[in-house]
Amino acid sequence: MRSQAPLRACGALLDYKTVKFALTRNRRVGLLHRLLQLGVLGYVLGWVLLARKGYQDTDRAPRAAVVTKMKGAAVAEAVGKGRRLWDAADYARPPQGENVLFLVTNFIATAQQSQGTCPEVSDLCWPQPSPGGGIKTGKCVMFNTTHSTCEIYGWCPVENNTVPRKPLLAEAENFTLFIKNTVHFTKFNFSKCNALQTNDPTYFKSCTYDPFFNRSCPVFRVRDMVEAAGETFGDLALLGGSIGVRIEWDCDLDHPAAQCQPQYSFSLQDRRYNFRTASYYWDSQRRLYRNLLKLYGIRFDISVHGQAGKFSIIPAAVSFGTGIAFFGAATVVCDLVLLYLDAKADFYWKEKFEEAKPPKGKTEAAA
Amino acid sequence: MRSQAPLRACGALLDYKTVKFALTRNRRVGLLHRLLQLGVLGYVLGWVLLARKGYQDTDRAPRAAVVTKMKGAAVAEAVGKGRRLWDAADYARPPQGENVLFLVTNFIATAQQSQGTCPEVSDLCWPQPSPGGGIKTGKCVMFNTTHSTCEIYGWCPVENNTVPRKPLLAEAENFTLFIKNTVHFTKFNFSKCNALQTNDPTYFKSCTYDPFFNRSCPVFRVRDMVEAAGETFGDLALLGGSIGVRIEWDCDLDHPAAQCQPQYSFSLQDRRYNFRTASYYWDSQRRLYRNLLKLYGIRFDISVHGQAGKFSIIPAAVSFGTGIAFFGAATVVCDLVLLYLDAKADFYWKEKFEEAKPPKGKTEAAA
Amino acid sequence: MRSQAPLRACGALLDYKTVKFALTRNRRVGLLHRLLQLGVLGYVLGWVLLARKGYQDTDRAPRAAVVTKMKGAAVAEAVGKGRRLWDAADYARPPQGENVLFLVTNFIATAQQSQGTCPEVSDLCWPQPSPGGGIKTGKCVMFNTTHSTCEIYGWCPVENNTVPRKPLLAEAENFTLFIKNTVHFTKFNFSKCNALQTNDPTYFKSCTYDPFFNRSCPVFRVRDMVEAAGETFGDLALLGGSIGVRIEWDCDLDHPAAQCQPQYSFSLQDRRYNFRTASYYWDSQRRLYRNLLKLYGIRFDISVHGQAGKFSIIPAAVSFGTGIAFFGAATVVCDLVLLYLDAKADFYWKEKFEEAKPPKGKTEAAA
Repeated sequence: MRSQAPLRACGALLDYKTVKFALTRNRRVGLLHRLLQLGVLGYVLGWVLLARKGYQDTDRAPRAAVVTKMKGAAVAEAVGKGRRLWDAADYARPPQGENVLFLVTNFIATAQQSQGTCPEVSDLCWPQPSPGGGIKTGKCVMFNTTHSTCEIYGWCPVENNTVPRKPLLAEAENFTLFIKNTVHFTKFNFSKCNALQTNDPTYFKSCTYDPFFNRSCPVFRVRDMVEAAGETFGDLALLGGSIGVRIEWDCDLDHPAAQCQPQYSFSLQDRRYNFRTASYYWDSQRRLYRNLLKLYGIRFDISVHGQAGKFSIIPAAVSFGTGIAFFGAATVVCDLVLLYLDAKADFYWKEKFEEAKPPKGKTEAAA
Repeated sequence: MRSQAPLRACGALLDYKTVKFALTRNRRVGLLHRLLQLGVLGYVLGWVLLARKGYQDTDRAPRAAVVTKMKGAAVAEAVGKGRRLWDAADYARPPQGENVLFLVTNFIATAQQSQGTCPEVSDLCWPQPSPGGGIKTGKCVMFNTTHSTCEIYGWCPVENNTVPRKPLLAEAENFTLFIKNTVHFTKFNFSKCNALQTNDPTYFKSCTYDPFFNRSCPVFRVRDMVEAAGETFGDLALLGGSIGVRIEWDCDLDHPAAQCQPQYSFSLQDRRYNFRTASYYWDSQRRLYRNLLKLYGIRFDISVHGQAGKFSIIPAAVSFGTGIAFFGAATVVCDLVLLYLDAKADFYWKEKFEEAKPPKGKTEAAA
Repeated sequence: MRSQAPLRACGALLDYKTVKFALTRNRRVGLLHRLLQLGVLGYVLGWVLLARKGYQDTDRAPRAAVVTKMKGAAVAEAVGKGRRLWDAADYARPPQGENVLFLVTNFIATAQQSQGTCPEVSDLCWPQPSPGGGIKTGKCVMFNTTHSTCEIYGWCPVENNTVPRKPLLAEAENFTLFIKNTVHFTKFNFSKCNALQTNDPTYFKSCTYDPFFNRSCPVFRVRDMVEAAGETFGDLALLGGSIGVRIEWDCDLDHPAAQCQPQYSFSLQDRRYNFRTASYYWDSQRRLYRNLLKLYGIRFDISVHGQAGKFSIIPAAVSFGTGIAFFGAATVVCDLVLLYLDAKADFYWKEKFEEAKPPKGKTEAAA
């Protein structure tokens, strides 16, 4: 007989076989079935298609370019050093506006350091040299009349580690940070910039960002950013800190491009942020000197995330198809009710599972 | 009766139940059914498996390392400052080749600035100080014979904001940028470098990149990159600009590793790019001076994206299974035709839905 | 008749139609069916739910903040320049601890360069100027008694390209790198820092990282990192190199947050790493000089990857539903066996596919 099977299969290639159903006028189960189907339908339409936009193809890896520029000037009154004006070239590190930049708000200046030996400034001798210190000579020398510390070989005199009571660049709160961010979604070849496309060179000199009224001018006041991160500028400026700026793009390219606007969010990443930098020079005897600056300040860490979605037939079909699959689950539930919980379970069982008894050599196990 | 259901279920554990079909010799619907099935098959094989490589496991977050190095030297003729040669140590900022680097092509030098008061250089008084300026004293002083501007306290003399007509480092177009990029796909523990693995130290000194003939030498001429971004070097060099370099890896690890080569694409991110940087020194009276440089130039922003795919049984099974699900959709369509549009719809309806009438207590609603 | 179809459809809205099965007491196929079902069940539970945690919603794009700080001091004995101490302000580039930082381990210093003409230091004349060199004047001049090289116009004297035999900052192996990394999973609003939250300011000054005993102190000894990358510090320090530090977060937020700890992995990205940097000064005649430093050293490239998962009903339903779909595949296989390979295939065929012959105008093709 096995030999006939293939033949039959070929011959009946164009027969259409449709599943046989047992139709039951069981109102209760019928109602349950419809309800479940409604639920699934709601899920597929409501969640998969509308909420999750399952009909869209998405690009989650945009090409992002960030260019930043600090603006503003402040006068700092360093004790014994007179007043000095700081402008962008002085307080912005690194100068070339990248996506991580640093604004000096406080500093400890140690002028005219040269190589030699001198007492370390510290209450106890660390197991490892502090960054400001050098190599211990082993001797312990008088630091001042009251107590003595370890002598070190290194840059002398050693930087004194008393931070000014109030931030020297307190006015920095009024500085502005211009964040120009362009994203490009390669999959859809769609580009957008967070700044207004204008030919007026003075526009970005005068405007400042406002979440409600002026979203196309990404010029942020430093204090606003600090407060958006839940801090007060005064506290952060003293010992420095790190603030994360997140630019979030979520563009639905089925809508007009003008609606594709970034969201800005600010968060405190870290309190206490500082580092040291030195500038070197040589005196007439070609002896090396350096001016050491311990800079406290606010570090801005700008990250760009984005996604864009656009209708596409493939994802639409896929998420629709997967949604359909759930209709099967509905019937499974109803069958369980019908076959195990219903009063006439036995009868329905027989109707659903029609026994097929082979003609000759019937199996011993009968119903 | 409910009590018997479980028993029966246990006993019949090894019964095999197969769905009953109503076989119809309806050629039209049969043909439609086959066609739909072919369509689904084509989709599963053609799209899911071949085009999308649904049978592969993919790693989309490669570990990328980028090291860059600028090479070349150019002579700049600054007015009144004589000719000066710029080499990599002069024009590359920051010096340690990172994935964002800057090439000076033009500059405004302001020598020997010191703190004091002087007239601001500008046609009108901004609401906020321009980065080059300082704190307004409130006075308005004669700037030159023709007109007067605000007096400021800050670094004097103030930088004059007239950009040279032609880029001072016009020769920079022949500089080369060496981009060494290594990617590591952790999921497959596969590493690849975009540069030829050679022991000849002079190789990368002499070769330049060619998309067709020399793809293993990632040494790019600056002008080539600018032109690949659709700009002309001359325009960009004058006021600066920002160019995005995107390195795209798309590796099919089922093929030999040699075929896994990156694609380089260049795009203009921004016109007009400049920043200020200063170097400080002290004169014999320990008075602070600085030399301010306003640097215009081209900023290269290198980003690496990549994905690698390799055959894996799980994703293969999943995408195959989801594909299968669509066969169900085909039969649904055919059933609709058969039961509603066919001439013998009534008959097929009865055959498909075999009424199951409970023996006693029959429901009032009869066919 | 077509007119009646809709009516009937409406009237029978609450009929429940359940699929009719042909029940066969075929033990072999029955057994096969159960086994396949077990396999699918194992796959769904074991792989989809447990291994892949298919019931979780995941966030793969954490907000990551990295702040680094180098500590330590070393004495370098430059030939003819006497001993000099290097501290963090000297050897860390850039000073503001970012996620890519550089530690000087060796250098070639060229003091008092000024613009002029001098013989190039090289055995042959490159087609393009070497970064240390300048513009060729075209002349060839005696470099020393033995042989002559091209004359160049540029910074003179030219840097001599003989690297010190032993790294000048060999002690740098004992320096420590403090990596403070905070991740924030926006989707779950969950933040975690890799460093112990302590109020003791001296804690991070004294502790060092240990993968087993002290994972909450991310202070890494340089040598440990180099060795973890499979290198020896001595080799790398001489000509420099690049080391990738990868911080991997994999947090299951269904478990207590304390278990969410990062994994640190180190890998060698590149051998030979160096760059040049210069500091400028002016002599009494306002003539420009620079001190050129060719810095060899270790570049640390820190990247953060992470994902967090948390139970969510939607993904649970989806991955469960897709898993269910495979049960269908099981029956397909069994049907093939039953209808083509079984001894009583013909009989089962007839039972499964019950022919539906239209009453009048019967089709010619009969079984």
